[in-house]
Amino acid sequence: MKKSIGILGGMGPLATADLFIKIVTQTKAERDNDHIRVYIDSNSAIPDRTAAILNGGPDPVEEMTSALRHLESCGADCIIMPCNTAHYFLPRLQEKTEIPILNMLEITAQNCALRYPGRCAAVLGTRGTLATGLYSAALEKAGVDYLLPDEGEQDVLMHLIYDVVKASRPLEPEADVWAALLDALRTRGADYFILGCTELPIVASTLDAEGPFVDPTLELAKAAVRFCGYETVEK
Amino acid sequence: MKKSIGILGGMGPLATADLFIKIVTQTKAERDNDHIRVYIDSNSAIPDRTAAILNGGPDPVEEMTSALRHLESCGADCIIMPCNTAHYFLPRLQEKTEIPILNMLEITAQNCALRYPGRCAAVLGTRGTLATGLYSAALEKAGVDYLLPDEGEQDVLMHLIYDVVKASRPLEPEADVWAALLDALRTRGADYFILGCTELPIVASTLDAEGPFVDPTLELAKAAVRFCGYETVEK
Repeated sequence: MKKSIGILGGMGPLATADLFIKIVTQTKAERDNDHIRVYIDSNSAIPDRTAAILNGGPDPVEEMTSALRHLESCGADCIIMPCNTAHYFLPRLQEKTEIPILNMLEITAQNCALRYPGRCAAVLGTRGTLATGLYSAALEKAGVDYLLPDEGEQDVLMHLIYDVVKASRPLEPEADVWAALLDALRTRGADYFILGCTELPIVASTLDAEGPFVDPTLELAKAAVRFCGYETVEK
Repeated sequence: MKKSIGILGGMGPLATADLFIKIVTQTKAERDNDHIRVYIDSNSAIPDRTAAILNGGPDPVEEMTSALRHLESCGADCIIMPCNTAHYFLPRLQEKTEIPILNMLEITAQNCALRYPGRCAAVLGTRGTLATGLYSAALEKAGVDYLLPDEGEQDVLMHLIYDVVKASRPLEPEADVWAALLDALRTRGADYFILGCTELPIVASTLDAEGPFVDPTLELAKAAVRFCGYETVEK
């Protein structure tokens, strides 16, 4: 019996669609019936994760649990979340369910160790994700060398994520901002970039700057496909 | 209280993602919390609809009902299906639930009447959709002039839908096939094209041929956004 996937989504909605598409396109399939059954609750009522962690904003766990219960009642065999910052709340969610929640950050760190041994990763993400130290912990556990954005670089990332992608604004006018950010990180020693906010693969695929990039959404999609007993298109 | 959307999906999975993205991008929103709550069951076990209608293949209603029950238990306020052929089974499904199922074909026909009064539509779709006469009925009801693909044109459409999009094969080598099909229909009197299979907007957006096109997935997305009490980006 092949397994199914539950996407605890809405964080944000476009990142949720991006994860779903990556599951579909990474599944080796010749017809509709070869695909994985996927359940999605794109719960737009989940409060902002970065605001909860940094500014005492409303706790998102209640609304995340509402989505978790829906995915449980559908019969999902694993849960995945297309939001890096949300992984701060993963231990509290995992306590509430028997269904395994696959950890995007740990999957990404293992992928970095395999693909870029001895090279230095720059971790791009929201202030919330960076402040939790979740990527640092996952990368250190996997033995991956890394550097974090400085204050000014974090401002640029928050602008791209919140003022542009989440605000449904066009990305093209931001091409120079994005390229300059990557150059600055390269000057400081970065060999490659972890797109550690699920809005950033959308930025990277729209704005054609040089990487190389590690896309946690893609790595999570492939890990979920394999968890379900299906073959992936890429290794 | 704003309403939520349930997508009875998997028919096919990429068309399901396409509908979801069109809902997200058509919703006027500045942040995650401005979006609509969307539930999706992308049920890859639903048997092929065209095979059921034309060749005595397995009845898809049981698996469609399984997805319907999941969306009901999540609390969806309306149901939409990203598959034109599946609409043949809509009356049987609607009997099983109190939740309104929005009819993509009727919404599309109304849109054609508004946008292209007095012009002739070519209906592009699977053999299953065309054999049911569902588009003919909806277009006649809305007073829209139309023509249907002949046998050879239907072969080309089935090839693009089944051998290419659903089989995850690259579309680019099919550019000439697609352009020639549209030219042939134009010669027979078509003024515009209804992309009456949810795989076809994927063909049309990848292969840059001249239209104009009416995209039923987009019209359904906009109708669902309005049903939920939200404003759309496009009229």
